[in-house]
Amino acid sequence: MIEVVFLGFGNVNQHLCKAFLQCENVTVKQIFNRNFIKSEPPFENIPFVEKMTTIETADVYIIGIPDDAIADFSEKLPFQNKLVVHTSGGVHINTISEKNRRGVFYPLQTFSKQRQMDFKTVPICLEAEKDSDLKLLQQLAGYISNTVVEISSEKRAKLHLAAVFVNNFTNYLYRIGNEILAEENLPFNLLKPLILETSEKIQNLDPREAQTGPAARNDLKTIEKHLHLLTNGEHKKLYELFTNQLKSNDGKKL
Amino acid sequence: MIEVVFLGFGNVNQHLCKAFLQCENVTVKQIFNRNFIKSEPPFENIPFVEKMTTIETADVYIIGIPDDAIADFSEKLPFQNKLVVHTSGGVHINTISEKNRRGVFYPLQTFSKQRQMDFKTVPICLEAEKDSDLKLLQQLAGYISNTVVEISSEKRAKLHLAAVFVNNFTNYLYRIGNEILAEENLPFNLLKPLILETSEKIQNLDPREAQTGPAARNDLKTIEKHLHLLTNGEHKKLYELFTNQLKSNDGKKL
Ligand SMILES: NC(=O)c1ccc[n+]([C@@H]2O[C@H](COP(=O)([O-])OP(=O)(O)OC[C@H]3O[C@@H](n4cnc5c(N)ncnc54)[C@H](OP(=O)(O)O)[C@@H]3O)[C@@H](O)[C@H]2O)c1
Ligand SMILES: NC(=O)c1ccc[n+]([C@@H]2O[C@H](COP(=O)([O-])OP(=O)(O)OC[C@H]3O[C@@H](n4cnc5c(N)ncnc54)[C@H](OP(=O)(O)O)[C@@H]3O)[C@@H](O)[C@H]2O)c1
Repeated sequence: MIEVVFLGFGNVNQHLCKAFLQCENVTVKQIFNRNFIKSEPPFENIPFVEKMTTIETADVYIIGIPDDAIADFSEKLPFQNKLVVHTSGGVHINTISEKNRRGVFYPLQTFSKQRQMDFKTVPICLEAEKDSDLKLLQQLAGYISNTVVEISSEKRAKLHLAAVFVNNFTNYLYRIGNEILAEENLPFNLLKPLILETSEKIQNLDPREAQTGPAARNDLKTIEKHLHLLTNGEHKKLYELFTNQLKSNDGKKL
Repeated sequence: MIEVVFLGFGNVNQHLCKAFLQCENVTVKQIFNRNFIKSEPPFENIPFVEKMTTIETADVYIIGIPDDAIADFSEKLPFQNKLVVHTSGGVHINTISEKNRRGVFYPLQTFSKQRQMDFKTVPICLEAEKDSDLKLLQQLAGYISNTVVEISSEKRAKLHLAAVFVNNFTNYLYRIGNEILAEENLPFNLLKPLILETSEKIQNLDPREAQTGPAARNDLKTIEKHLHLLTNGEHKKLYELFTNQLKSNDGKKL
């Protein structure tokens, strides 16, 4: 049985907690949050504390608070030599105070309050200072996910950077699509099947092979027409940059 | 019964043909292609011709050839006053020779030979010069899709432009994600669940609400770190442009 305490109870830790509640080999012993959180199902039976001094002993402490707050917060923890992990993509393992045994438990996914998550599909990226701690984290992660990988802080930083491109920037392109349609009073719904198919296509196809469009086939007439249609200067700048890169890179390594 | 003849038999017309073969109210009377195409299942029972003069009479002729070729090709057709449509997002209805009754039958989706398509989910954008032709196209499109809309050539051009952002440019971001991981010998598979979730999230959530990431929360420390990690100048240019737009636009209308 692995005993877990959550430190902070935002988006990520709530999703993790839900996943652990499904595992018979994991006990969620306690939830700590600096501010009171009303216990709602499925969390109503888990002891909740607001005072650091009342945090109980556990096998793993999972910090799920904003990146910037991890260093200070971990410094203030009133115990030592325990396994303390954070859940961040971009934060170095050494950011956690060295008075505890440090580790990382990074679920590579975008979480939102509104959406359920099937954790089996979420890659979990682990790191630990000690071999025995890594083993424990591997066991814990293996209970909830089918993809568990050990990754150094340096590589994880790159992974997080790549995630910004395929998640944050992609979402911004969806916003632009929405804006262009809104100008014509067309519903965003029209683009949704295309958006889904674009993401599903590369599940089995290299994105280089999947690349299509006016820029990839050097269709200058259409590009010219599009630049003319773009009324928003910022949309236009992105269109030009993408188009130049696609024209010069197609077929080549980026 | 609506009788259809396909003119050109590439990606789009093959997908359309497969969909029509499932409809008891549609007959695919003939396939024309300028070059011979070996008849393979499920097309083996449809008469195939290579000579324009042997094209038979039908209710609708669907041109599915490259955008640039539509004008000349439609001019050469050896019949007149028939309903002739093209399947392009970016081509004006008037590009088709006026010797026939003109229309558009644009399926807003990205098609590939390798992937099956459930046409029910594909929005079909229609246009026709004559009301009775529009009605016929609506009936035909309604047999295969749940989303049939009438859209002018001007609006369709904007729709096609938006599609370039959410499909072609998004796919390029996937390529960049892949490249960044490849530099670290990390498998692209790690990003796939995130890519799927990003596209699924906005099926029920406005992309503005779904926006997250360092730029959206003005996390300058992470942005600085990412710019430092980016070794490829082109990736960096895109990172900077997206980040600037996200920082200045978040919350505001783009
Ligand atoms: N969101 C994602 O999709 C995602 C994905 C992967 C990894 N991550 C990482 O997971 C971690 C948590 O992110 P999140 O999205 O779950 O955050 P979140 O939903 O904003 O939750 C933040 C939690 O941290 C607490 N908190 C805020 N400032 C604090 C401080 N100074 N001291 C102590 N507690 C504090 C908050 O408590 P109060 O209620 O008291 O404010 C809240 O419980 C971050 O490191 C993030 O990079 C996020
Ligand atoms: N691909 C998509 O995802 C997609 C989505 C929506 C709309 N569209 C539109 O659908 C149309 C067809 O695109 P596609 O992707 O199906 O093209 P495609 O797969 O490249 O097929 C092109 C077809 O046109 C024929 N063709 C090429 N040049 C020709 C010419 N000068 N005269 C007569 N026939 C010619 C080809 O025949 P040969 O075998 O003889 O070369 C082939 O059958 C385009 O207007 C495109 O904008 C495409």
